[in-house]
Amino acid sequence: MELKEKTLASELVFNGCLLKIYRDEVELADGGASVREVVHHPGGAAVVALDGEGNVYLERQFRYPYHKVVTEIPAGKLEPGENPAHAIRRELQEEIGATAGRWDSLGHIMPSVGYTDEMLYLFLARDLTFGERHLDQDEFLEPFKMPFAEALSQAASGQINDAKTLAALFRADRLMREEKHG
Amino acid sequence: MELKEKTLASELVFNGCLLKIYRDEVELADGGASVREVVHHPGGAAVVALDGEGNVYLERQFRYPYHKVVTEIPAGKLEPGENPAHAIRRELQEEIGATAGRWDSLGHIMPSVGYTDEMLYLFLARDLTFGERHLDQDEFLEPFKMPFAEALSQAASGQINDAKTLAALFRADRLMREEKHG
Repeated sequence: MELKEKTLASELVFNGCLLKIYRDEVELADGGASVREVVHHPGGAAVVALDGEGNVYLERQFRYPYHKVVTEIPAGKLEPGENPAHAIRRELQEEIGATAGRWDSLGHIMPSVGYTDEMLYLFLARDLTFGERHLDQDEFLEPFKMPFAEALSQAASGQINDAKTLAALFRADRLMREEKHG
Repeated sequence: MELKEKTLASELVFNGCLLKIYRDEVELADGGASVREVVHHPGGAAVVALDGEGNVYLERQFRYPYHKVVTEIPAGKLEPGENPAHAIRRELQEEIGATAGRWDSLGHIMPSVGYTDEMLYLFLARDLTFGERHLDQDEFLEPFKMPFAEALSQAASGQINDAKTLAALFRADRLMREEKHG
């Protein structure tokens, strides 16, 4: 079966500061017609930052769509054309005040494949050195640390529910277990 | 520090079939003003369905925002007011042709906390019985199965990158390891 859908027409229905919303007419796999509503997002990067005592750095941040404070790993949007590996170094510096001597890629995730084209790149940062935080003017967040194993348990049990945080903790755990056991 | 943001004004800027987009003016934690662009989504449910041989059921589906075929666990949107536990039984039946004798909740995730209010409820289904598939008219997907351990490895290594699939496989693994080891 050919699964591909073909774009017949594309209309920009909202051109926001962060989001662009498109309403596309498409030809389905069976030749029928349908409409796809798509959020265009600049993409982002997020990091599992571990200190020498096995703690991971998390943040509490008010997330407006849910009207509540959410626990997450440090993350940020990409500037136009920006390399994710560059973006995440800036975010770690700004939000946690840390630089890392050792970086590993944890790949990428697609947060919600049905309607957004957001790509989120994940990283593991180790050998941290701490300096000053420099938050953006409209950013308000509380950083804190927690043993990595405890964060992994909270992600498994549903105390941590942010998708990028779950994915990154899970992949970081698998990577570090592979390093240990060859 | 008070992290809360207050809604000053809310405007519906796009009223689609699937998505509603709002542009809200908000008062930030420090009293300053900003704009939040929010996607309102009906929410969804997704399931790790395991057969008696330790296989998990996956699907290949063309995902229009990325213009490519993505590997995912079975999932679907909630109807207005629908219970996620009800929705996921329907989706498992429609997409895989299966009913399950044993259901466990794997909690929920927030796919992309910065701009969408989507809530995605995760489940583990076991003791499967197979009948006929009944796909929606505009759904085109290829179901297949894979050993659960292999799916978990692919999620860790970056061959599977759908966020809900990663989160659900990770939580299902932790739940089953707890069952085994008490």
